[in-house]
Amino acid sequence: MSDSRPALGVGMVGYAFMGRAHSQAWRNVGAFFDLPVRPVMAALGGRSEERTAAAAASLGWAAVETDWKRLVHRDDVAIVDVCTPGDSHAEIAIAALAAGKHVLCEKPLANSVAEAEAMAEAAREAAGRGVRAMVAFNYRRVPAVALARRLVAEGRLGEIRHVRAQYLQDWIVDPDFPLVWRLRKDKAGSGALGDIGAHIVDTAQFVTGQALTGVSALTETFVKERPLAEDSSGLAGAGRGGERGEVTVDDAALFIGRFEGGALGSFEATRFATGRKNALRIEVNGALGSLAFDFESMNELWFHDAAEPEAGFRRILVTEPHHPYAGAWWPPGHGLGYDHTFVHEVKDFLEAIAAGTDPSPTFEDGLRVQRVLAAVEESAASGSRWTAVP
Amino acid sequence: MSDSRPALGVGMVGYAFMGRAHSQAWRNVGAFFDLPVRPVMAALGGRSEERTAAAAASLGWAAVETDWKRLVHRDDVAIVDVCTPGDSHAEIAIAALAAGKHVLCEKPLANSVAEAEAMAEAAREAAGRGVRAMVAFNYRRVPAVALARRLVAEGRLGEIRHVRAQYLQDWIVDPDFPLVWRLRKDKAGSGALGDIGAHIVDTAQFVTGQALTGVSALTETFVKERPLAEDSSGLAGAGRGGERGEVTVDDAALFIGRFEGGALGSFEATRFATGRKNALRIEVNGALGSLAFDFESMNELWFHDAAEPEAGFRRILVTEPHHPYAGAWWPPGHGLGYDHTFVHEVKDFLEAIAAGTDPSPTFEDGLRVQRVLAAVEESAASGSRWTAVP
Amino acid sequence: MSDSRPALGVGMVGYAFMGRAHSQAWRNVGAFFDLPVRPVMAALGGRSEERTAAAAASLGWAAVETDWKRLVHRDDVAIVDVCTPGDSHAEIAIAALAAGKHVLCEKPLANSVAEAEAMAEAAREAAGRGVRAMVAFNYRRVPAVALARRLVAEGRLGEIRHVRAQYLQDWIVDPDFPLVWRLRKDKAGSGALGDIGAHIVDTAQFVTGQALTGVSALTETFVKERPLAEDSSGLAGAGRGGERGEVTVDDAALFIGRFEGGALGSFEATRFATGRKNALRIEVNGALGSLAFDFESMNELWFHDAAEPEAGFRRILVTEPHHPYAGAWWPPGHGLGYDHTFVHEVKDFLEAIAAGTDPSPTFEDGLRVQRVLAAVEESAASGSRWTAVP
Amino acid sequence: MSDSRPALGVGMVGYAFMGRAHSQAWRNVGAFFDLPVRPVMAALGGRSEERTAAAAASLGWAAVETDWKRLVHRDDVAIVDVCTPGDSHAEIAIAALAAGKHVLCEKPLANSVAEAEAMAEAAREAAGRGVRAMVAFNYRRVPAVALARRLVAEGRLGEIRHVRAQYLQDWIVDPDFPLVWRLRKDKAGSGALGDIGAHIVDTAQFVTGQALTGVSALTETFVKERPLAEDSSGLAGAGRGGERGEVTVDDAALFIGRFEGGALGSFEATRFATGRKNALRIEVNGALGSLAFDFESMNELWFHDAAEPEAGFRRILVTEPHHPYAGAWWPPGHGLGYDHTFVHEVKDFLEAIAAGTDPSPTFEDGLRVQRVLAAVEESAASGSRWTAVP
Repeated sequence: MSDSRPALGVGMVGYAFMGRAHSQAWRNVGAFFDLPVRPVMAALGGRSEERTAAAAASLGWAAVETDWKRLVHRDDVAIVDVCTPGDSHAEIAIAALAAGKHVLCEKPLANSVAEAEAMAEAAREAAGRGVRAMVAFNYRRVPAVALARRLVAEGRLGEIRHVRAQYLQDWIVDPDFPLVWRLRKDKAGSGALGDIGAHIVDTAQFVTGQALTGVSALTETFVKERPLAEDSSGLAGAGRGGERGEVTVDDAALFIGRFEGGALGSFEATRFATGRKNALRIEVNGALGSLAFDFESMNELWFHDAAEPEAGFRRILVTEPHHPYAGAWWPPGHGLGYDHTFVHEVKDFLEAIAAGTDPSPTFEDGLRVQRVLAAVEESAASGSRWTAVP
Repeated sequence: MSDSRPALGVGMVGYAFMGRAHSQAWRNVGAFFDLPVRPVMAALGGRSEERTAAAAASLGWAAVETDWKRLVHRDDVAIVDVCTPGDSHAEIAIAALAAGKHVLCEKPLANSVAEAEAMAEAAREAAGRGVRAMVAFNYRRVPAVALARRLVAEGRLGEIRHVRAQYLQDWIVDPDFPLVWRLRKDKAGSGALGDIGAHIVDTAQFVTGQALTGVSALTETFVKERPLAEDSSGLAGAGRGGERGEVTVDDAALFIGRFEGGALGSFEATRFATGRKNALRIEVNGALGSLAFDFESMNELWFHDAAEPEAGFRRILVTEPHHPYAGAWWPPGHGLGYDHTFVHEVKDFLEAIAAGTDPSPTFEDGLRVQRVLAAVEESAASGSRWTAVP
Repeated sequence: MSDSRPALGVGMVGYAFMGRAHSQAWRNVGAFFDLPVRPVMAALGGRSEERTAAAAASLGWAAVETDWKRLVHRDDVAIVDVCTPGDSHAEIAIAALAAGKHVLCEKPLANSVAEAEAMAEAAREAAGRGVRAMVAFNYRRVPAVALARRLVAEGRLGEIRHVRAQYLQDWIVDPDFPLVWRLRKDKAGSGALGDIGAHIVDTAQFVTGQALTGVSALTETFVKERPLAEDSSGLAGAGRGGERGEVTVDDAALFIGRFEGGALGSFEATRFATGRKNALRIEVNGALGSLAFDFESMNELWFHDAAEPEAGFRRILVTEPHHPYAGAWWPPGHGLGYDHTFVHEVKDFLEAIAAGTDPSPTFEDGLRVQRVLAAVEESAASGSRWTAVP
Repeated sequence: MSDSRPALGVGMVGYAFMGRAHSQAWRNVGAFFDLPVRPVMAALGGRSEERTAAAAASLGWAAVETDWKRLVHRDDVAIVDVCTPGDSHAEIAIAALAAGKHVLCEKPLANSVAEAEAMAEAAREAAGRGVRAMVAFNYRRVPAVALARRLVAEGRLGEIRHVRAQYLQDWIVDPDFPLVWRLRKDKAGSGALGDIGAHIVDTAQFVTGQALTGVSALTETFVKERPLAEDSSGLAGAGRGGERGEVTVDDAALFIGRFEGGALGSFEATRFATGRKNALRIEVNGALGSLAFDFESMNELWFHDAAEPEAGFRRILVTEPHHPYAGAWWPPGHGLGYDHTFVHEVKDFLEAIAAGTDPSPTFEDGLRVQRVLAAVEESAASGSRWTAVP
């Protein structure tokens, strides 16, 4: 079928969990959203040629590169999608921007504030050349979260007083779960804090439209040693003999904080909340109303409007045509799943590229999150001392 | 990327709601399931060349046919996927089977028992030639519903005593909603009964593993006349001038019935349950436990095991690796959406074709549902008289 | 403490489950509601002097009678509260009304339509003498149910299209649960139908303000024989040797029906819904909104107002000062329990007596319920034939 | 009715919210629990003779005292129940214990650690004389909370890792809500912290069986001035002219902390959670399972047992005969309300008195809570500095 829209080749680095999710987005976005450009799944980057080729075949990528630098410089690649662990984000993203490629980078933006600053600087510079950069906080694109933001922005909650946000998982409760890369500081930067804490910090700042200004924090590593993973890179999950290695990241991070508008925040990210699988939860209380969300029921937003005489929280099934993103999919009541958030993400990214505007969240937004994470680590390391977010 | 698996070309007829859902399935099934065959989206059939071509471009079909007969006889088509309104199912499916094509047919199987019988007969005959037929009751492929079936089959509920099933929608509560094809008996066969009642009859029979043996029913059309749709075919939804036409199908259908194993059933299908968007609900009570499901929370199954000392229903988030279909997707707690059910459906269909076995549900299963619907209509038309299901 | 309000002596017959609940009401109503009269717990009636005296001591009754006729004629008794099994309601209530005593009678009003008619006639006659009669459908006095009625009466739901009501229990799922009086037709009249089906029929008619006009029904006795209870009267619950006796009432009753205003109803009462303990549920769908209630979460009413742009059902915690009955108790969010419904019941009864008006529900309302139950039995006995409610 | 059990006269000081709740307990406990002693509602203490007499009449107290010292020394009073604001707890309770009266004292135990220490010392001394003291943390007596404690004590959760506890209300969100005594430091000691924060601290320590060892905290007063209450004592709620006075307590208190067993805790008490009425919530995650509770659904406990293959949290309706307290009331599924918790409280108190054992929670437990509250205040006043609980 002919198509007069400009094609934009995408090159993606990494094909594990995030790579599969992003592939789903690139493969399907055109079937549901009427886009100004046409994304083409040009090339997939990975270290092992065999594995990368197999992934490309099943995920729908046309070509394979085993060196990300070659991928970044391919002529048929206009967009670089970075789905690697956090330790390589800065290098790849900065190189891609320098090469004039738009960049979508997984979160957390980087493993350190210094790297994140360099990336934000590179993005600012690139924007001057019309090259766009976006950090992939996909939970902003859950329709219910986007609706939450809309309601706050419309003033339906009034002045915000409280934010309580939790991201609860339980996949490493078993002390014999192996020492995968996400449990190693050199690869992952931090543990629950950077992996899932980053999401609730971003979600809270996004929904309220306010930045955190200071925090007091605790972190903990409940299981100090774990079986070594089979793969010496620590990237595979299976156990290796009886050897154990040190867990060098946090299992859980808690903090209280203040927002610039005067609200109080309570945050908790943990991989030890037995029975909670992917409970990204946020509740926001304002002078005029409140909101509550739990990703384990991702198609629902609970909204309380204090002006309603009967009181109570309304369970909004966020599947109506006028709800964010929802109208592009199915009739009301036919819910969406986790991977749809990535479709929304690339849709917004592609529209921003076509419009010549900065996509949201920018690398600057990613840097803001990184600064909060750094303040949390600093506070936790110094007896929960109050630590300002720069 | 090379791929040694045999390719199977798919030709789909119809590209409206169901066609879009099925396209999503064909496009993505290979990325998540390790299939013995490789589906190829060969051709899309529709009446208007222009519209069909546009749909094919956005949905990912390689070619277009404006005559379904040509599509059915294409050499590159091995599977025909029938996504048209019910009045054309029999003709297309029977022709496709005769042409040696495997057939996936949307539900309800047909608009009458006679048509459904002819289709089941054609499927039986085709099976002798290694040609497969499946009716698309997609809700069987919701992981929670598949898990419900598994628990019943394992005997976890004991002898089944009660089934209460409802399918509640509200999209035509507004009396000025137009007279679309789903509200016309000539196109749709029946109203809520065949469209959504068919789903709860199939789901109830599937989960319990038992057939309904008799019913006593009521049907009602609350709004007798509606604005004519713009398109004279009645297929479009927009209103036309001030003219109104007669609604010739039911708005709601209720019935009570008995299952072959002695359980009592209570069923209700309606498009007038204000505020309920797509509430396909089923609760099953057995001697040893109970189950409850509501599609509006499609990733949850509620299970009560009477042997547990503390009592209560467990809210199972059906996203664990050992849950049906779930392991192929995302980590626990990352839920699925409506369209994933179609991916599961074509996955099972393709596996059955490759294995040379009958896929489930068969056209015979579709016929069984059709016979229940006919008994409901007969009972409702004769003062709720008890009516046996043949 | 002196009290200038007129005292009204209460005599209660029966001190089992219902007698304990009513005692709780008489004992506490004055502490929370500012009543025009002062109830005095004068006398308790029961067959065994010893047991009745013990019950009176613990429940707070001043005197004991072992002959209900003596109780009914005591000078210090102005109100007779009938808490016996259904087979003695008519005799006691009619005698009490004849003696000029106000009567509160447990539901179902009687075990047959004929008895209920005689009672309603006696109540009408007594009302002419200023003597009041009320049937104790306590669930009308759940604040959430009363609020549901208010919302319907205010027109918030518009024209009612659907009522689905269930009363689900599971206390006799065990086939070795003994043959207590509630399982014997001579004592109880019917099984689930009269015991709990009566409640959902009354609740549905109360909330909608509409009467059922016809039904089509099924009943079933899943366990046909049970161990004889120890007490030869069949009133005690413990098993007796190995003997089993016939269960002469229904275990479950289902029916569909029509209301006078055009709504369709679906009803189910069962003692075999494993895991459901006291799930009196009702959902009402109207042209403008919907309501849902489940007694297992008795402080909540779910309300959907179709005019709200965001859609969804609101979970109203029915504990606000402006909610029915709630203001008399505790601050918002401090929920009530089962026994509070009886306090509300006697409060309304006492106020009606003081005001010289008929309390609601009247014996006539009880008779209307009885006629529905009789129609259900008749339909079930004649192959689910449609049966008009006279 | 004769009764051979020893009578114990109760004298209660205060008849506002707590006094009404405690009266409900004294009035009804004997009807549901088979007690070793018989409580007699001997005398009610209050400042205004007229108002106290009216309260006594409606609540069921036999006599009235306008001087609490006289009440404490009445011969017919064996138990003193202290329901006044926190500023008078120490004086009354210590005097009563000195007079040989058993004491039930509302929470928080006192307005300062010094007072609480004196009270705990007095209680220890009195216990040597067989005189008992109990602090009224009634939420321990919610059946679901008592069941939570039982499950933790039985080891069903394994090692505890996380506690998150919130007490959310919204009754002073309106800035024109008047300056009642609960908003004045001289009367109430603190705001949300002592009033409702005390409850979640006690509940968390009770359920886990572990003490908090240190905290880092934030407090905030969102509305700094409010209309003066009419009554110059600040005890009444109605506004007075246009004058406003300073709010001298916290509106909200948040803290993170550590438990002696190594668990992390996150706590939040606020009166500004718009739409949350009385949401005392606690979630506990252990190595083997988890628990969750919300008082707004007080008859439910959510329990996750990680050993169950299907995963998920079970919604236990805590109304079974074998659940704490529940068997004394109604059949399963017939829930309890707020005031039942006080019945359970006085039942346990009376049984401890009769058994000659210390009731739980003791004044020592109340002191432990007070020390946590003091640490929270100290931390909040010193930049969220980590503050050990002595």
